[in-house]
Amino acid sequence: MRTSLFTDHYELTMLQAALASGAAHRPSVFEAFSRRLPEGRRYGVVGGTGRLLEGLADFHFGDDELKFLSDNRVVNAETLKYLEDFTFTGTITGYAEGELYFPNSPLLMVESSFAEACVIETYLLSVMNHDSAIASAASRMIASAANRPCIEMGSRRTHEESAVAAARAAIIAGFDSTSNLEAGARYGLKTVGTSAHSFTLLHDTERAAFEAQVASLGRDTILLVDTYDVETGVRTAVEVAGPQLGGVRLDSGDLVQQAGWVRTLLDDLGNWNTKITVTSDLDEYAIAALASAPVDSYGVGTALVTGSGHPTASMVYKLVSRQDDAGQWIPVAKAAANKASVGGRKYAVRELNERGRAVAEVVSTTEYTTGGPERDLMVPLVINGEIDRSFIGAQGVAKAAARHRGSIQEMPGEARKLQRGEPVIPTIMVRS
Amino acid sequence: MRTSLFTDHYELTMLQAALASGAAHRPSVFEAFSRRLPEGRRYGVVGGTGRLLEGLADFHFGDDELKFLSDNRVVNAETLKYLEDFTFTGTITGYAEGELYFPNSPLLMVESSFAEACVIETYLLSVMNHDSAIASAASRMIASAANRPCIEMGSRRTHEESAVAAARAAIIAGFDSTSNLEAGARYGLKTVGTSAHSFTLLHDTERAAFEAQVASLGRDTILLVDTYDVETGVRTAVEVAGPQLGGVRLDSGDLVQQAGWVRTLLDDLGNWNTKITVTSDLDEYAIAALASAPVDSYGVGTALVTGSGHPTASMVYKLVSRQDDAGQWIPVAKAAANKASVGGRKYAVRELNERGRAVAEVVSTTEYTTGGPERDLMVPLVINGEIDRSFIGAQGVAKAAARHRGSIQEMPGEARKLQRGEPVIPTIMVRS
Repeated sequence: MRTSLFTDHYELTMLQAALASGAAHRPSVFEAFSRRLPEGRRYGVVGGTGRLLEGLADFHFGDDELKFLSDNRVVNAETLKYLEDFTFTGTITGYAEGELYFPNSPLLMVESSFAEACVIETYLLSVMNHDSAIASAASRMIASAANRPCIEMGSRRTHEESAVAAARAAIIAGFDSTSNLEAGARYGLKTVGTSAHSFTLLHDTERAAFEAQVASLGRDTILLVDTYDVETGVRTAVEVAGPQLGGVRLDSGDLVQQAGWVRTLLDDLGNWNTKITVTSDLDEYAIAALASAPVDSYGVGTALVTGSGHPTASMVYKLVSRQDDAGQWIPVAKAAANKASVGGRKYAVRELNERGRAVAEVVSTTEYTTGGPERDLMVPLVINGEIDRSFIGAQGVAKAAARHRGSIQEMPGEARKLQRGEPVIPTIMVRS
Repeated sequence: MRTSLFTDHYELTMLQAALASGAAHRPSVFEAFSRRLPEGRRYGVVGGTGRLLEGLADFHFGDDELKFLSDNRVVNAETLKYLEDFTFTGTITGYAEGELYFPNSPLLMVESSFAEACVIETYLLSVMNHDSAIASAASRMIASAANRPCIEMGSRRTHEESAVAAARAAIIAGFDSTSNLEAGARYGLKTVGTSAHSFTLLHDTERAAFEAQVASLGRDTILLVDTYDVETGVRTAVEVAGPQLGGVRLDSGDLVQQAGWVRTLLDDLGNWNTKITVTSDLDEYAIAALASAPVDSYGVGTALVTGSGHPTASMVYKLVSRQDDAGQWIPVAKAAANKASVGGRKYAVRELNERGRAVAEVVSTTEYTTGGPERDLMVPLVINGEIDRSFIGAQGVAKAAARHRGSIQEMPGEARKLQRGEPVIPTIMVRS
């Protein structure tokens, strides 16, 4: 599957006009960044980098794509000729996937001809905006869940391909597993699931359904006990599966109160090792409210795949520097009122205190060091068209999840606060 | 591309247990519906039906999918055997794509064995929930825009594949065109676009950029005039392109006020036919606020692709009826507190008054007529596995757009109100 038409029409008409004027070949630097976090959020999480690099490898215009562009007169013959040979040969450095970010963090710096950077704009932003929104929401849920495992199960609430990307982003942010089989197949993620209400309703009685499930999936399966009466459901589940029953799932009602008495009931019946999974429109706040309830794992759906109120990361991609005809680098920026940006290629380090805790995000327009403990945030992702393959596929997911754990541990404890507030560390712009 | 793994793990474990118990083959009816509209919305719009039918044709388990399920022990050998031959052979009737819907409208009725209906659940909901959310938001924007064309340009703010589906849903709801080239290629949609700020910044001066664009794209192109000073931008645009200048685009600032004086300036310069396009985080409310401004078209991005605050349609899919071993149909429904549903296969008609205006959504558990003017809402989409191909591809999009226009015209005028309120017509449940 080629990714080249996941592109706005204007990228190619701009390309056409720039090829005609000759400016298309000017060496350029584009920056992807976000002017702000969603209101009240303490940090964002970079998601999508690995997917972007995977897709970049398939970003070519084949016969079908060229025929579409030609038949529909999207661009002229000179431009089609250019696209025929298109492959991204530039350099991309930026925040590793899983890294935390803050307002104006220079997430990706794309260095290439204007033409190459322009053509990949839409695709780059689609991938990063979606996946970062999901990773950011997922990370807050993990913080709320403390050490209890979270299961991603939101596929049905979002586009089928977004669902795969959302599962991947959730795992990077610390989720234990996903319900999404395609995500399992594509990225080697752990998939889980047992049954739904329809399975109980299909059988003549709840007992018959539980017997069928236990017979086929084993005593350590998880039985859904709220199709009819929860207490009867729990008692029947224990009668059918015995003390080895793996778990019960609660999907409705007042989960805090219900988890309490279901735990007591299970213990009274001798099912000390039977776990309780709760689902039903959980978000980070509902998870936090369940902290004191005897719950063993959380299944999270809608709120996860819709970014818990913020389904896009509002990342933009701006030309910040380009050469003139004399080969001089010219920093550039739009002047218009509410969308001003800072020109010039950017660098970024995370300043740490002597105990290794993050203190500030320091963004600069020349290479810069705080002189004290710090961590360079800009890592090479693509060098002269050569993609660092350690960021892609299953390996990339594991690497990103490790990066996320490390970056979270480095943050002050307030990062995990759910209450609305300022970014947990300030972004400091150092201008040369 | 096969669609079969866009499926939650539990669909297949349920299938395994039901194959073992024998219940998998019970004739069943599943219903897709939504318990509520997003708060304050007057109606919803069905989106995704055509995409669902396209994907259903590719819903098979090939060697790769079976190997994944086998290697990861998702299901046992008997289940793999069943899936090897899987093809949906059931019947789906429901609301045509583009149709309006209300709380508890029976959007899709899926009649097949439990096994078949179960296996397609996740995919069906993913497609319908995403596309309906976008179509519903888009329809409100079109109502706000009155007769001014709206252009979909939100690709960069959502997953690259969601972007294609969003463009398609926007066109169904009445958008004029999209920026998304893949959507153009896949569904024959009209794509548009000219240039971004980066194009202006790439050139040594705004004038040089405008000259390059006009030279390549023609005098009837749209020039983006707010990179530096808007007034200078407009004057330069007119100097470069002359009276045939197609349009100017405003992407920042106070658009209401700006559109006013830019129109005056264009007229003063003799550019009476040069149009004004506005963009910049528009939603249905911002569009309504621009009604009195001399704007010719609206470009809509983020708000469209994120469903304007409601990125998913909260559609669910429930087993409502199934046969017992004696071949009797048994209506079934979950009893649990906040998620109760009504059992039984559903029918629906839209009751009209004598002037052809919609009065009520009448949902019944047996075929029912109001006795007066009415329109049957349940149309056959798949009959015994045979997909009605008039709903898919470019043809399907045109058909859905026509259905949407017809259904909107049938509604009372209050349907177009932006203020929060009740659904514009009530849903009446008739039980036999």
